[in-house]
Amino acid sequence: MTADDIPAPFAGLEVGFDLPALPGMDISQVQTPCLVLDLDALERNIRKMGDFKLAHGMRHRAHGKMHKSVDVLKLQQRLGGVDGVCCQKVSEAEVFARGGITDILVSNQVRDPAKIDRLARMPKLGADVSVCIDALSNVADLSEAATRHGTTLGALVEIDCGARRCGVETPAEAVEIARAIAATPGLRYEGIQAYQGEMQHLPTPAERQAAFDIVLAQVRRTIAALTEAGLAPETVTGGGTGSYRFEAASGVYTELQCGSYAFMDADYGRILDDTGGRFDQGEWDNALFILTSIMSHAKPDRAVCDAGLKAQAVDSGLPVVHGRTDVTYIHCSDEHGVLTDPGGVLKINERLRLIPGHCDPTCNLHDWYVGVRDGKVETLWPVSARGKGY
Amino acid sequence: MTADDIPAPFAGLEVGFDLPALPGMDISQVQTPCLVLDLDALERNIRKMGDFKLAHGMRHRAHGKMHKSVDVLKLQQRLGGVDGVCCQKVSEAEVFARGGITDILVSNQVRDPAKIDRLARMPKLGADVSVCIDALSNVADLSEAATRHGTTLGALVEIDCGARRCGVETPAEAVEIARAIAATPGLRYEGIQAYQGEMQHLPTPAERQAAFDIVLAQVRRTIAALTEAGLAPETVTGGGTGSYRFEAASGVYTELQCGSYAFMDADYGRILDDTGGRFDQGEWDNALFILTSIMSHAKPDRAVCDAGLKAQAVDSGLPVVHGRTDVTYIHCSDEHGVLTDPGGVLKINERLRLIPGHCDPTCNLHDWYVGVRDGKVETLWPVSARGKGY
Repeated sequence: MTADDIPAPFAGLEVGFDLPALPGMDISQVQTPCLVLDLDALERNIRKMGDFKLAHGMRHRAHGKMHKSVDVLKLQQRLGGVDGVCCQKVSEAEVFARGGITDILVSNQVRDPAKIDRLARMPKLGADVSVCIDALSNVADLSEAATRHGTTLGALVEIDCGARRCGVETPAEAVEIARAIAATPGLRYEGIQAYQGEMQHLPTPAERQAAFDIVLAQVRRTIAALTEAGLAPETVTGGGTGSYRFEAASGVYTELQCGSYAFMDADYGRILDDTGGRFDQGEWDNALFILTSIMSHAKPDRAVCDAGLKAQAVDSGLPVVHGRTDVTYIHCSDEHGVLTDPGGVLKINERLRLIPGHCDPTCNLHDWYVGVRDGKVETLWPVSARGKGY
Repeated sequence: MTADDIPAPFAGLEVGFDLPALPGMDISQVQTPCLVLDLDALERNIRKMGDFKLAHGMRHRAHGKMHKSVDVLKLQQRLGGVDGVCCQKVSEAEVFARGGITDILVSNQVRDPAKIDRLARMPKLGADVSVCIDALSNVADLSEAATRHGTTLGALVEIDCGARRCGVETPAEAVEIARAIAATPGLRYEGIQAYQGEMQHLPTPAERQAAFDIVLAQVRRTIAALTEAGLAPETVTGGGTGSYRFEAASGVYTELQCGSYAFMDADYGRILDDTGGRFDQGEWDNALFILTSIMSHAKPDRAVCDAGLKAQAVDSGLPVVHGRTDVTYIHCSDEHGVLTDPGGVLKINERLRLIPGHCDPTCNLHDWYVGVRDGKVETLWPVSARGKGY
């Protein structure tokens, strides 16, 4: 491929320095380590969740914090009927707003005055923007900023359903905040957010169901108190890849916030679906991989690959080598992965596909997704909101 | 600060979207989460290692993989007499070469043909470039590329001194590779690399000494065999922040590769120095912090800050809250850190300084260093080689 062949969006960028690949390349030419998306698997996952949400009459604001990509979100809209995007950070949300996404929920608290100011300006980019609130003092700050900019922000009360992170714990607190939102200019009261992250990865459906029963009881108590106060929530949002079937069956949730289903990861792969099968072998397909190359094999029974801690997050365990049972990734240092290779079968420059332990923080390490189909690079998508943590 | 006040290098960039701060800002205005460098502490660390290497007659190629910053490396050259930079990746090395650093060791194997080609071209950017080799088959590939580009690459044999990662295990293999390097056009035989990463973090000096004794025995055997073969190494390079005193006292090492000493981290902070004191309280100062803000406190005994897995790597444990014993960072999720706050003392938007568990992969998550002195932002340095993993 010569400079003249480089497609316009990539002009001036160099493969192996700025980019891992260019569209049209054979997968064998892709520079490692990098993120590879199996486009067939990705599209299947997206369509499947789209069919599910349609069948259950749910809205779905797909979680953009997982992939941080405007292009993936647009694919989710096109193939999966996704209604909007959830973001965790203001700067992340702004990437999606600038990218043309018009339905944005910041599924988190925004407290810093400068961030509140940016959030309140964001509707001027053409997006409906909502935010979560778990403290009465936040209502006035958000209202003041929205009023100053002549905008309106949607607002949901975040309730804590067992994770003990953000969110209020009692229906009385929820009512107090909801009442303040409804009475305050610049804010539009929408309902509640009830998302419990910790239950998503519980190994069996029965354990997840039990955790969700606690969530649901809390949500029902809160809805009852709000309704009693004349503040019945129009939106009840929550639900991740490990629990979405429960929210959909609950009769009270109106909206899902699933993210990981689109890509999958090794940690989700280990949980079981309703049939007792692995979550990544039936319910969902692994669409996200770290492509890595063997770059040292100085010991006959050990090989070293070029994907370490800077190519993947290991908070949820080491990566799994896709499609191989003869070699195992056993140790991760900054730039190296050590693999056992008892048969001495790995060759220098051989490529492996790793399934990362945890997709969200792994994606945030990379600048590009290499979309692959039939062994060819079909597309390169920037990880548009990578590093947007403000 | 208005648009007119924005210094030229930051023109067009927005604080809170592209940048966490601008020079001149009060620290209270800095957008979180971000990396903060205490410039006084950083300069003390750099000067101290500079004095040490001078006093011991050692060269020092500071490890650029830790900070990935041309600006920090130039400070290390100016204040710490650093002779050059070590890099782990070709694209990372290229950032330093483009930034004007003229002495570069890629302290790693380079096997992919496209990477070998980039490496062989790099001397044309004005840098002396060396690389490590642990396989005979790599010698011919590197030589072919250097010859094709009319350049010369320095080459060191990497020996494995106990970590079982890269490197040859026997003196005979080292001699075989060294002989091939010396006999091959386009390559300049320089000596050996003997770096043992795993011993760096052993808790006591006695344990590190014991591990180093094994390393040293292996290095001496290798040097003897090379000398016997007429291939006495001019350079013997290795030595990290946990072991540099041993390499300097060994009588055989000629060069250090320390990186973490400049910034420190919580994992190094837990090891003990020669006096039995903590490594970060005497020997080195903590210069690197994650600045984070409290953004939720809906439960009286728990607060939530805005620095989670996307602001820091947790492979070496959770961060430590600097200068505080009343609050503890106990849980890290994608965008949140949960702190116990038994006294309920933390206020919304209060800033905390976190000492990250592991500096290298934490730095690689961020785009900027905010250099701070006396409560003011003095400088912003890009993390120039962030994401350069190819």
